[in-house]
Amino acid sequence: MVKVYLAGPEVFLSNARMILARKAELARAAGFTPLVPGDLAIPETNSKRERGVAISGVNEGMMRHADLIIANLTPFRGISADVGTVFELGFMCGLGRPVYAYTNSARGYFERALHDYYGGRVAKRPDGATAGPDGLSIEDFDMADNLMLDGGIETRGGTFVRRPVPEAERFTNLQAFEECLAIAARRHLA
Amino acid sequence: MVKVYLAGPEVFLSNARMILARKAELARAAGFTPLVPGDLAIPETNSKRERGVAISGVNEGMMRHADLIIANLTPFRGISADVGTVFELGFMCGLGRPVYAYTNSARGYFERALHDYYGGRVAKRPDGATAGPDGLSIEDFDMADNLMLDGGIETRGGTFVRRPVPEAERFTNLQAFEECLAIAARRHLA
Repeated sequence: MVKVYLAGPEVFLSNARMILARKAELARAAGFTPLVPGDLAIPETNSKRERGVAISGVNEGMMRHADLIIANLTPFRGISADVGTVFELGFMCGLGRPVYAYTNSARGYFERALHDYYGGRVAKRPDGATAGPDGLSIEDFDMADNLMLDGGIETRGGTFVRRPVPEAERFTNLQAFEECLAIAARRHLA
Repeated sequence: MVKVYLAGPEVFLSNARMILARKAELARAAGFTPLVPGDLAIPETNSKRERGVAISGVNEGMMRHADLIIANLTPFRGISADVGTVFELGFMCGLGRPVYAYTNSARGYFERALHDYYGGRVAKRPDGATAGPDGLSIEDFDMADNLMLDGGIETRGGTFVRRPVPEAERFTNLQAFEECLAIAARRHLA
Protein backbone atom coordinates (compact mmCIF):
# COMPACT_ATOMS: atom_id res chain seq x y z
CA MET A 1 0.00 0.00 0.00
CA VAL A 2 1.57 3.24 -1.17
CA LYS A 3 0.21 6.17 0.82
CA VAL A 4 -0.23 9.59 -0.77
CA TYR A 5 -0.83 12.77 1.27
CA LEU A 6 -3.32 15.05 -0.48
CA ALA A 7 -2.34 18.64 0.34
CA GLY A 8 -4.24 21.71 -0.76
CA PRO A 9 -6.51 24.62 0.14
CA GLU A 10 -9.68 22.56 -0.49
CA VAL A 11 -10.09 22.43 3.29
CA PHE A 12 -11.33 26.04 3.10
CA LEU A 13 -14.15 25.36 0.62
CA SER A 14 -17.74 25.24 1.83
CA ASN A 15 -17.98 21.81 0.16
CA ALA A 16 -14.57 20.72 1.44
CA ARG A 17 -15.71 17.26 2.55
CA MET A 18 -17.17 16.51 -0.86
CA ILE A 19 -14.12 17.64 -2.83
CA LEU A 20 -11.70 15.90 -0.48
CA ALA A 21 -13.76 12.69 -0.64
CA ARG A 22 -13.65 12.91 -4.45
CA LYS A 23 -9.87 13.38 -4.40
CA ALA A 24 -9.51 10.38 -2.06
CA GLU A 25 -11.71 8.30 -4.34
CA LEU A 26 -9.62 9.21 -7.39
CA ALA A 27 -6.42 8.38 -5.48
CA ARG A 28 -7.83 4.96 -4.54
CA ALA A 29 -8.91 4.36 -8.14
CA ALA A 30 -5.32 5.07 -9.21
CA GLY A 31 -4.09 2.43 -6.72
CA PHE A 32 -2.97 4.63 -3.80
CA THR A 33 -4.05 4.81 -0.18
CA PRO A 34 -5.03 8.47 0.34
CA LEU A 35 -4.16 10.39 3.52
CA VAL A 36 -6.40 13.44 3.72
CA PRO A 37 -6.18 16.41 6.11
CA GLY A 38 -9.30 16.53 8.23
CA ASP A 39 -9.87 12.76 8.15
CA LEU A 40 -8.50 12.17 11.65
CA ALA A 41 -10.18 13.38 14.84
CA ILE A 42 -8.56 16.42 16.47
CA PRO A 43 -7.90 16.00 20.21
CA GLU A 44 -9.95 18.21 22.55
CA THR A 45 -8.28 21.52 23.35
CA ASN A 46 -8.91 24.58 25.48
CA SER A 47 -8.39 27.43 23.03
CA LYS A 48 -8.53 28.27 19.33
CA ARG A 49 -4.76 28.46 19.27
CA GLU A 50 -4.32 25.04 20.91
CA ARG A 51 -6.73 23.61 18.37
CA GLY A 52 -4.68 25.05 15.52
CA VAL A 53 -1.52 23.51 16.94
CA ALA A 54 -3.32 20.16 17.36
CA ILE A 55 -4.43 20.17 13.70
CA SER A 56 -0.89 20.99 12.64
CA GLY A 57 0.36 18.02 14.67
CA VAL A 58 -2.18 15.64 13.13
CA ASN A 59 -1.25 16.80 9.61
CA GLU A 60 2.49 16.43 10.32
CA GLY A 61 1.82 12.92 11.64
CA MET A 62 -0.06 11.99 8.46
CA MET A 63 2.82 13.26 6.36
CA ARG A 64 5.31 11.15 8.28
CA HIS A 65 3.18 8.11 7.39
CA ALA A 66 2.87 9.14 3.74
CA ASP A 67 5.12 7.81 0.98
CA LEU A 68 4.60 10.81 -1.25
CA ILE A 69 2.66 14.07 -1.53
CA ILE A 70 0.48 15.58 -4.25
CA ALA A 71 0.13 19.30 -3.48
CA ASN A 72 -2.44 21.65 -4.96
CA LEU A 73 -0.41 24.82 -5.52
CA THR A 74 -3.16 26.80 -7.28
CA PRO A 75 -2.80 30.46 -6.20
CA PHE A 76 -4.85 31.08 -3.07
CA ARG A 77 -5.95 34.53 -1.82
CA GLY A 78 -3.24 36.18 -3.84
CA ILE A 79 -0.64 35.39 -6.45
CA SER A 80 1.06 32.42 -4.75
CA ALA A 81 0.06 29.02 -3.43
CA ASP A 82 -1.58 28.51 -0.03
CA VAL A 83 1.24 28.77 2.53
CA GLY A 84 -0.08 25.80 4.53
CA THR A 85 0.27 23.61 1.45
CA VAL A 86 3.70 25.10 0.69
CA PHE A 87 4.87 24.29 4.22
CA GLU A 88 3.73 20.70 3.64
CA LEU A 89 5.54 20.51 0.31
CA GLY A 90 8.74 21.71 1.98
CA PHE A 91 8.21 19.32 4.89
CA MET A 92 7.94 16.30 2.57
CA CYS A 93 11.05 17.47 0.65
CA GLY A 94 12.88 17.66 3.99
CA LEU A 95 11.71 14.13 4.80
CA GLY A 96 13.13 13.01 1.46
CA ARG A 97 9.83 11.83 0.03
CA PRO A 98 8.76 12.16 -3.62
CA VAL A 99 6.70 15.28 -4.33
CA TYR A 100 4.17 16.08 -7.04
CA ALA A 101 2.15 19.23 -7.48
CA TYR A 102 -0.36 20.89 -9.73
CA THR A 103 -1.86 24.29 -10.30
CA ASN A 104 -5.09 25.23 -12.03
CA SER A 105 -3.51 28.53 -13.09
CA ALA A 106 -1.92 28.54 -16.53
CA ARG A 107 0.16 31.67 -15.95
CA GLY A 108 3.52 31.73 -14.22
CA TYR A 109 4.58 33.66 -11.13
CA PHE A 110 6.22 36.49 -13.09
CA GLU A 111 3.02 37.18 -15.04
CA ARG A 112 0.80 37.02 -11.94
CA ALA A 113 3.06 39.37 -9.97
CA LEU A 114 3.37 41.79 -12.88
CA HIS A 115 -0.32 41.91 -13.88
CA ASP A 116 -2.40 40.75 -10.91
CA TYR A 117 -0.35 42.25 -8.09
CA TYR A 118 1.30 45.33 -9.62
CA GLY A 119 -1.24 46.00 -12.38
CA GLY A 120 1.58 46.37 -14.88
CA ARG A 121 3.25 49.20 -12.94
CA VAL A 122 6.73 47.74 -12.99
CA ALA A 123 10.11 49.08 -14.08
CA LYS A 124 13.69 47.92 -14.50
CA ARG A 125 15.90 48.55 -11.48
CA PRO A 126 19.50 49.70 -11.96
CA ASP A 127 20.55 46.09 -11.23
CA GLY A 128 18.48 44.89 -14.21
CA ALA A 129 15.72 43.27 -12.17
CA THR A 130 12.06 43.97 -12.95
CA ALA A 131 10.50 45.48 -9.84
CA GLY A 132 7.23 46.91 -8.58
CA PRO A 133 6.72 50.47 -7.25
CA ASP A 134 7.65 49.03 -3.83
CA GLY A 135 11.14 48.28 -5.16
CA LEU A 136 10.79 44.52 -4.71
CA SER A 137 12.14 42.49 -7.61
CA ILE A 138 9.91 39.96 -9.35
CA GLU A 139 11.64 36.65 -9.85
CA ASP A 140 11.60 35.64 -13.49
CA PHE A 141 12.57 32.00 -13.93
CA ASP A 142 9.79 30.65 -16.18
CA MET A 143 8.26 28.99 -13.14
CA ALA A 144 4.75 28.48 -11.83
CA ASP A 145 5.63 29.90 -8.41
CA ASN A 146 8.67 30.72 -6.26
CA LEU A 147 11.83 28.87 -7.30
CA MET A 148 12.03 26.90 -4.07
CA LEU A 149 8.71 25.24 -4.98
CA ASP A 150 9.30 24.52 -8.67
CA GLY A 151 12.98 23.77 -8.01
CA GLY A 152 12.27 21.47 -5.07
CA ILE A 153 9.83 19.46 -7.18
CA GLU A 154 12.09 19.25 -10.23
CA THR A 155 15.23 18.41 -8.25
CA ARG A 156 13.66 15.25 -6.83
CA GLY A 157 12.20 14.09 -10.14
CA GLY A 158 8.66 15.20 -9.37
CA THR A 159 6.25 16.86 -11.76
CA PHE A 160 4.46 20.20 -11.41
CA VAL A 161 1.38 20.04 -13.68
CA ARG A 162 -0.01 23.40 -14.90
CA ARG A 163 -3.47 23.36 -16.42
CA PRO A 164 -5.82 26.31 -16.97
CA VAL A 165 -9.42 25.94 -15.83
CA PRO A 166 -12.45 28.28 -15.92
CA GLU A 167 -12.24 30.70 -12.97
CA ALA A 168 -15.39 29.24 -11.36
CA GLU A 169 -13.64 25.85 -11.14
CA ARG A 170 -10.39 27.17 -9.71
CA PHE A 171 -10.52 25.04 -6.57
CA THR A 172 -12.82 22.24 -7.70
CA ASN A 173 -11.52 21.14 -11.10
CA LEU A 174 -9.54 17.93 -10.58
CA GLN A 175 -8.12 17.32 -14.06
CA ALA A 176 -4.58 18.40 -13.17
CA PHE A 177 -4.83 16.41 -9.94
CA GLU A 178 -5.78 13.31 -11.94
CA GLU A 179 -2.82 13.93 -14.23
CA CYS A 180 -0.52 14.04 -11.17
CA LEU A 181 -2.04 10.81 -9.89
CA ALA A 182 -1.41 9.08 -13.22
CA ILE A 183 2.23 10.23 -13.32
CA ALA A 184 2.83 9.24 -9.70
CA ALA A 185 1.11 5.88 -10.22
CA ARG A 186 3.42 5.02 -13.13
CA ARG A 187 6.44 5.80 -10.98
CA HIS A 188 5.48 4.45 -7.58
CA LEU A 189 3.06 1.58 -8.13
CA ALA A 190 4.34 -1.74 -9.41
CA MET B 1 30.10 26.54 15.36
CA VAL B 2 26.33 26.57 15.29
CA LYS B 3 25.09 27.44 11.82
CA VAL B 4 21.87 29.39 11.32
CA TYR B 5 20.12 29.65 7.95
CA LEU B 6 18.67 33.15 7.43
CA ALA B 7 15.50 32.77 5.38
CA GLY B 8 13.34 35.64 4.17
CA PRO B 9 12.16 37.80 1.30
CA GLU B 10 15.03 40.29 1.74
CA VAL B 11 16.54 38.78 -1.41
CA PHE B 12 13.97 40.78 -3.40
CA LEU B 13 14.93 44.19 -1.96
CA SER B 14 16.94 46.63 -4.06
CA ASN B 15 19.39 46.81 -1.14
CA ALA B 16 19.28 43.05 -0.55
CA ARG B 17 23.04 42.65 -0.17
CA MET B 18 23.18 45.36 2.49
CA ILE B 19 20.29 44.00 4.56
CA LEU B 20 21.51 40.41 4.28
CA ALA B 21 25.02 41.48 5.27
CA ARG B 22 23.56 43.27 8.29
CA LYS B 23 21.57 40.17 9.29
CA ALA B 24 24.70 38.02 8.93
CA GLU B 25 26.66 40.49 11.06
CA LEU B 26 23.99 40.41 13.80
CA ALA B 27 23.97 36.59 13.70
CA ARG B 28 27.76 36.52 14.10
CA ALA B 29 27.54 39.03 16.96
CA ALA B 30 25.07 36.66 18.68
CA GLY B 31 27.57 33.81 18.34
CA PHE B 32 26.22 31.98 15.26
CA THR B 33 27.72 31.21 11.88
CA PRO B 34 25.20 32.63 9.39
CA LEU B 35 24.30 30.83 6.16
CA VAL B 36 22.74 33.35 3.79
CA PRO B 37 20.91 32.71 0.49
CA GLY B 38 22.83 34.35 -2.33
CA ASP B 39 26.22 33.97 -0.65
CA LEU B 40 27.29 31.00 -2.76
CA ALA B 41 28.02 31.16 -6.46
CA ILE B 42 25.30 29.75 -8.71
CA PRO B 43 26.59 27.29 -11.33
CA GLU B 44 26.38 28.40 -14.99
CA THR B 45 23.12 27.40 -16.65
CA ASN B 46 21.52 27.64 -20.08
CA SER B 47 18.09 29.05 -19.27
CA LYS B 48 16.22 31.15 -16.73
CA ARG B 49 14.44 28.04 -15.51
CA GLU B 50 17.67 26.07 -15.05
CA ARG B 51 19.08 29.00 -13.10
CA GLY B 52 16.05 28.96 -10.79
CA VAL B 53 16.49 25.24 -10.18
CA ALA B 54 20.20 25.77 -9.51
CA ILE B 55 19.48 28.48 -6.90
CA SER B 56 16.94 26.19 -5.26
CA GLY B 57 19.58 23.44 -5.09
CA VAL B 58 22.16 25.77 -3.53
CA ASN B 59 19.62 26.96 -0.92
CA GLU B 60 18.59 23.37 -0.08
CA GLY B 61 22.26 22.47 0.31
CA MET B 62 22.79 25.37 2.73
CA MET B 63 19.80 24.26 4.79
CA ARG B 64 21.17 20.72 5.03
CA HIS B 65 24.33 22.21 6.53
CA ALA B 66 22.43 24.48 8.90
CA ASP B 67 21.69 23.61 12.53
CA LEU B 68 18.62 25.83 12.72
CA ILE B 69 16.62 28.37 10.74
CA ILE B 70 15.37 31.88 11.50
CA ALA B 71 12.64 32.69 8.99
CA ASN B 72 11.27 36.15 8.20
CA LEU B 73 7.53 35.43 7.80
CA THR B 74 6.46 39.07 7.37
CA PRO B 75 3.57 39.11 4.85
CA PHE B 76 4.94 39.49 1.34
CA ARG B 77 2.92 40.63 -1.71
CA GLY B 78 -0.29 39.68 0.02
CA ILE B 79 -1.58 38.55 3.39
CA SER B 80 0.76 35.62 4.01
CA ALA B 81 4.48 35.03 4.24
CA ASP B 82 6.72 34.65 1.19
CA VAL B 83 6.14 31.10 -0.10
CA GLY B 84 9.85 30.53 -0.74
CA THR B 85 10.57 31.21 2.93
CA VAL B 86 7.61 29.05 3.96
CA PHE B 87 8.95 26.15 1.87
CA GLU B 88 12.27 26.55 3.70
CA LEU B 89 10.57 26.58 7.11
CA GLY B 90 8.74 23.35 6.21
CA PHE B 91 11.94 21.85 4.82
CA MET B 92 13.83 22.46 8.08
CA CYS B 93 10.92 21.04 10.09
CA GLY B 94 11.06 17.94 7.87
CA LEU B 95 14.81 17.70 8.54
CA GLY B 96 14.04 17.84 12.26
CA ARG B 97 16.00 21.05 12.89
CA PRO B 98 14.96 23.78 15.35
CA VAL B 99 12.97 26.58 13.75
CA TYR B 100 12.48 30.24 14.74
CA ALA B 101 10.53 32.88 12.93
CA TYR B 102 9.46 36.49 13.12
CA THR B 103 7.04 38.83 11.46
CA ASN B 104 7.03 42.61 11.36
CA SER B 105 3.23 42.56 11.14
CA ALA B 106 1.42 42.88 14.46
CA ARG B 107 -1.91 41.59 13.18
CA GLY B 108 -2.81 37.93 12.84
CA TYR B 109 -3.87 36.01 9.75
CA PHE B 110 -7.59 36.23 10.52
CA GLU B 111 -7.49 40.04 10.71
CA ARG B 112 -5.39 40.38 7.56
CA ALA B 113 -7.68 38.09 5.55
CA LEU B 114 -10.80 39.79 6.86
CA HIS B 115 -9.67 43.41 6.39
CA ASP B 116 -6.83 43.48 3.86
CA TYR B 117 -8.04 40.74 1.51
CA TYR B 118 -11.84 40.81 1.83
CA GLY B 119 -12.22 44.45 2.91
CA GLY B 120 -14.55 43.36 5.68
CA ARG B 121 -17.03 41.70 3.30
CA VAL B 122 -17.28 38.41 5.18
CA ALA B 123 -20.20 36.41 6.54
CA LYS B 124 -20.86 33.32 8.61
CA ARG B 125 -21.35 30.15 6.58
CA PRO B 126 -24.02 27.60 7.57
CA ASP B 127 -21.18 25.51 9.07
CA GLY B 128 -20.27 28.40 11.39
CA ALA B 129 -17.06 29.38 9.62
CA THR B 130 -16.35 33.00 8.71
CA ALA B 131 -15.95 33.18 4.94
CA GLY B 132 -15.36 35.69 2.16
CA PRO B 133 -17.69 36.32 -0.79
CA ASP B 134 -15.76 33.55 -2.59
CA GLY B 135 -17.04 31.07 0.01
CA LEU B 136 -13.56 30.26 1.33
CA SER B 137 -13.38 30.02 5.12
CA ILE B 138 -10.88 32.15 7.01
CA GLU B 139 -8.97 30.15 9.59
CA ASP B 140 -9.29 31.68 13.01
CA PHE B 141 -6.78 30.20 15.44
CA ASP B 142 -5.20 33.30 17.00
CA MET B 143 -2.15 32.76 14.84
CA ALA B 144 0.20 34.98 12.87
CA ASP B 145 -0.25 32.93 9.69
CA ASN B 146 -1.53 29.51 8.54
CA LEU B 147 -1.65 26.93 11.33
CA MET B 148 0.99 24.72 9.71
CA LEU B 149 3.48 27.58 10.15
CA ASP B 150 2.63 28.68 13.69
CA GLY B 151 1.92 25.08 14.72
CA GLY B 152 5.12 23.71 13.21
CA ILE B 153 7.17 26.31 15.08
CA GLU B 154 5.39 25.83 18.41
CA THR B 155 5.42 22.01 18.24
CA ARG B 156 9.21 21.89 18.09
CA GLY B 157 9.71 24.47 20.84
CA GLY B 158 10.55 27.34 18.54
CA THR B 159 9.38 30.91 18.89
CA PHE B 160 7.44 33.08 16.41
CA VAL B 161 8.13 36.70 17.33
CA ARG B 162 5.50 39.26 16.23
CA ARG B 163 6.48 42.91 16.33
CA PRO B 164 4.81 45.85 14.59
CA VAL B 165 7.02 48.28 12.68
CA PRO B 166 6.30 51.41 10.61
CA GLU B 167 5.15 50.38 7.12
CA ALA B 168 8.23 51.91 5.49
CA GLU B 169 10.43 49.55 7.53
CA ARG B 170 8.39 46.41 6.79
CA PHE B 171 11.30 44.51 5.22
CA THR B 172 14.24 46.33 6.73
CA ASN B 173 13.50 46.61 10.45
CA LEU B 174 15.55 43.94 12.22
CA GLN B 175 14.32 44.27 15.81
CA ALA B 176 12.20 41.09 15.73
CA PHE B 177 15.06 39.29 13.99
CA GLU B 178 17.40 40.33 16.80
CA GLU B 179 14.88 39.08 19.34
CA CYS B 180 14.82 35.70 17.55
CA LEU B 181 18.59 35.60 17.56
CA ALA B 182 18.71 36.25 21.31
CA ILE B 183 16.15 33.49 22.03
CA ALA B 184 17.93 31.01 19.75
CA ALA B 185 21.32 31.90 21.24
CA ARG B 186 20.11 31.17 24.77
CA ARG B 187 18.89 27.74 23.63
CA HIS B 188 21.55 26.62 21.19
CA LEU B 189 24.82 28.25 22.23
CA ALA B 190 26.69 26.98 25.26
